[in-house]
Amino acid sequence: VQPKADGQEAALAAGARVGDLGELALIERINRRVGSPPRRVVIGIGDDTAAVRLTAGTLALMTTDAMVEDVHFRRRSSSAADVGWKALAINASDIASMGGAPTAAMVSLVLPPTLEARWVDDLYEGLIEAARAFDIAIVGGNLAQGPSIVIDVGLLGEVAEDRVISRAHARPGDLVAVTGTLGRAAAGLIALEHDSLPAVGSEAASAIQAQRRPQPRLAAGRALAASGAVRAMIDLSDGLALDLSRLCDASAVGVRIDATRLPIDAAVQTVARFAGRDLVDLAIAGGEDYELLFAIPPEAERQVMDALAAVEVSATVIGTMLSSEHGRTIVVDGAEVPLEARGWTHFGG
Amino acid sequence: VQPKADGQEAALAAGARVGDLGELALIERINRRVGSPPRRVVIGIGDDTAAVRLTAGTLALMTTDAMVEDVHFRRRSSSAADVGWKALAINASDIASMGGAPTAAMVSLVLPPTLEARWVDDLYEGLIEAARAFDIAIVGGNLAQGPSIVIDVGLLGEVAEDRVISRAHARPGDLVAVTGTLGRAAAGLIALEHDSLPAVGSEAASAIQAQRRPQPRLAAGRALAASGAVRAMIDLSDGLALDLSRLCDASAVGVRIDATRLPIDAAVQTVARFAGRDLVDLAIAGGEDYELLFAIPPEAERQVMDALAAVEVSATVIGTMLSSEHGRTIVVDGAEVPLEARGWTHFGG
Repeated sequence: VQPKADGQEAALAAGARVGDLGELALIERINRRVGSPPRRVVIGIGDDTAAVRLTAGTLALMTTDAMVEDVHFRRRSSSAADVGWKALAINASDIASMGGAPTAAMVSLVLPPTLEARWVDDLYEGLIEAARAFDIAIVGGNLAQGPSIVIDVGLLGEVAEDRVISRAHARPGDLVAVTGTLGRAAAGLIALEHDSLPAVGSEAASAIQAQRRPQPRLAAGRALAASGAVRAMIDLSDGLALDLSRLCDASAVGVRIDATRLPIDAAVQTVARFAGRDLVDLAIAGGEDYELLFAIPPEAERQVMDALAAVEVSATVIGTMLSSEHGRTIVVDGAEVPLEARGWTHFGG
Repeated sequence: VQPKADGQEAALAAGARVGDLGELALIERINRRVGSPPRRVVIGIGDDTAAVRLTAGTLALMTTDAMVEDVHFRRRSSSAADVGWKALAINASDIASMGGAPTAAMVSLVLPPTLEARWVDDLYEGLIEAARAFDIAIVGGNLAQGPSIVIDVGLLGEVAEDRVISRAHARPGDLVAVTGTLGRAAAGLIALEHDSLPAVGSEAASAIQAQRRPQPRLAAGRALAASGAVRAMIDLSDGLALDLSRLCDASAVGVRIDATRLPIDAAVQTVARFAGRDLVDLAIAGGEDYELLFAIPPEAERQVMDALAAVEVSATVIGTMLSSEHGRTIVVDGAEVPLEARGWTHFGG
């Protein structure tokens, strides 16, 4: 693959289509953007596989998550850079929820040939920005042609074997806590879809930012793993109701949460009021929070909150794990009702 | 996720659509097919990430490759099981070309909601068959909705750090060799596209099998890495001409190959004659061979061929690496002509 002269690339950049460039030029263009990898990457982009040195005594963590055009994003309302950021951030959030650190990412793209090459450049701008922010090496990927855009990120992470936290070991009596606040990304989506919402100003802007540029809780995840006190953890991608149900499934426990304790910030309250949406519904079923939900024994509460404070993250206890016969409930306005497995799933399930 | 009663699943199976099942039922259906993982998998399907124990002193290898409907396969001419097999096999071939062993796979699917759920079952049948054949644990994945089918496999492998073979260290004077034979999968594609070719009988069938069920050269890759004599290696996915050019790019060398030495079996000769196609063209530009192409110093030839024979793989020396000024050439009918970077790329490049 010969690099093109700069002038030639500049000429191509003005409105060039992916199909005009060809695969090799497109790969070359991506390689130059990604730049040199860190030392742990022994073989990076451009070989049959990447090769990454892992520390002895650690587990390799693997996750993958795809973003599909007109399903997860619309080109009209999301910049390519935001899509790139989010594609890496949502995978990093999965690594965070195991207590791990992300290491290296593979980016698999399906692109229509008529897509402007500039869009791919901007996508990589967001991917690279996120990779820097989360200390991830982009080590390779794949390009394929197809009818609509798919960005599929595969992320490798690592965690010490005695620190890994799964969803599986919560026990009745454990406290259930969540980092940060809930519903901001969902409020951001509402703000993006309602033209009149810019009227609510900076609060809508903060919610829109949460929607476009989610921040995975990497430092918090590692601090929680290092505390040794967390029994089960999951990241909130599809909304608290659904993700908490998944944690209860994996741990074979029930749960009761208290709606009055849900951490909901002013931006969400403002957008919900403006759009006539139910606040609790936004907080438990809005999705895309990318906060960490975890279970701890009650006696460890102070220690765990201190560990989070040390990385400048707050968390809120929102309920208690119960035996599985109790089922999953939420107390709203004094009444205990089933916590329906509401949230965002594909295929309507 | 509660498993459904068997009767209920049977009722759903008859023509059920992906959109009827919902995501959770579809995941459950996949989980039951995949079954229990091997011991190296500490956390498998169903958590935020998978966790895999790697041996100390090894490199983690990462690769990804996608198959897109109507680009890489057509539902009319490929069974879902063949697509599943191939999706895993083509990634395993990349791991083979580094001298590594595949370890764990993540399967990311984009599916139209109207797709029959049965198709996904059959896809996993092929994936699981390949996973057993290549000793790969399927440890997770992702499901997303989209307008056409995309099967994107991310594969983790491992290799001892002092054995990994990249594309980068071939030297002028090295011999260039290739395992097995060339052009079978390309001949198989021709046979599939020409209704009259079944007339050529079992030879066409063998070529069609190579197209549908490629066999990655895992044992050969490991034997070549263990020999310590291989300077550079690549797997042949897009055809010898293009993949050899990539190896020459990475190693900054030229090459001369001899068309009379290309290993082409009888099935390819029969199909090429029947379809009126050029034999050398099929062998160097047909693609999808998934053989290993490698460079060795001449004095290591016997040792390397013996190491391959020990795993029952044959290889053929087809040319010599030269200094980069020579360029890349092929001797055909006594004339030395440029080895054009022909082969299969996306976006026409």
